[in-house]
Amino acid sequence: MQLWGFWRSLATFRVRIALNLKGISFEETSIDLIAGVQRSESYRAVNPQMVLPALVDGEGPVLFQSLAILEYLEETRPEPPLLPTDARGRARVRGLAAIVAADSHPLIVPRVREYLDAELGIAEEARARWCRHWIEAGLTAIESHLATEPETGRYCHGDTATIADICLVSLTVGANLFGARPENLPHVTRIAESCLAEAAFADAHPLRQAGAPPQA
Amino acid sequence: MQLWGFWRSLATFRVRIALNLKGISFEETSIDLIAGVQRSESYRAVNPQMVLPALVDGEGPVLFQSLAILEYLEETRPEPPLLPTDARGRARVRGLAAIVAADSHPLIVPRVREYLDAELGIAEEARARWCRHWIEAGLTAIESHLATEPETGRYCHGDTATIADICLVSLTVGANLFGARPENLPHVTRIAESCLAEAAFADAHPLRQAGAPPQA
Repeated sequence: MQLWGFWRSLATFRVRIALNLKGISFEETSIDLIAGVQRSESYRAVNPQMVLPALVDGEGPVLFQSLAILEYLEETRPEPPLLPTDARGRARVRGLAAIVAADSHPLIVPRVREYLDAELGIAEEARARWCRHWIEAGLTAIESHLATEPETGRYCHGDTATIADICLVSLTVGANLFGARPENLPHVTRIAESCLAEAAFADAHPLRQAGAPPQA
Repeated sequence: MQLWGFWRSLATFRVRIALNLKGISFEETSIDLIAGVQRSESYRAVNPQMVLPALVDGEGPVLFQSLAILEYLEETRPEPPLLPTDARGRARVRGLAAIVAADSHPLIVPRVREYLDAELGIAEEARARWCRHWIEAGLTAIESHLATEPETGRYCHGDTATIADICLVSLTVGANLFGARPENLPHVTRIAESCLAEAAFADAHPLRQAGAPPQA
């Protein structure tokens, strides 16, 4: 498969994890979100929304939006499953995933930070606080589910990884990238650390991609 | 089914449309987002994220996040279908839905407007401009898909309503509520108007719910 992504993109990170978990080989083309390459004519032809990621499976068409891509991978490459088999369980997993991919992460992406800066004149420190706030709100909401619901297991839902874990890990890694240090999230922390000990998650990590700054 | 919603909530609007399309009867409990009732202890016991909507089907548990609820309804009440049968078509519909439910609408919800006001001191006019900007960005992205992709039909995907139409209509109605007047969106406009001529969509409209301001 052909993936368009960027080392730092948390939505690309989610798709990379799913591809790894399902053992799907892919090539990634880097679209530099910091330099604005997502607005180039050539990338607009791939994804007119000018956001990452985009994925092409075989002859196409281009698949877009990380949650839709995760569902597509699940439907076309069902092993190992990344959703439970029961409708209520699937709803819980999709709900946890959406807390990240709909309610938290879209608030901190480059185009939003750029608007805060250029249109609203928000200084860098306040922009960073904004990002930390929404990351922490998302992680706290997920913790409240994980801490009280009997379906929580070794992973967010039972004892195998699902798209909830993929999304959760993307946000905990985002927390680190943005300098957020949320506290009192024992379930979130335990599950994210456990996931990141697995190669499928670790190999997809933003800081392990081409273009990432070298680590100390 | 038991729905927790609010007349103005665009995410609740989406779930109401799906319930209507599938002919599912429901009772709605109003949670006043303007008065902050979503932060009450009693609603936190329903949805610890303190957002709308929430839905209980029979004995529960509570279902949360509009996209996850739409998928649950589709899996448990498959007629009429709100997703295509082919994986690539389903990915396209889910991608269009996510442009609304992940990339646009979460930027304009009350908790975000409150943060812009209270934490960043953004004046009302600039907050309104912010809302219009993200609504227009979402609708423009959807238009670019609809205008160029052969799957577009009477609805966003073919000639029957899908979750893409549900999400699209929620954002066009949001555009009206926020005073956005996006131009050059012929496909978006045509499809949204056609949907809102149907009872399942019209009956779910924010301004037709209990608590909405009287219309001229």
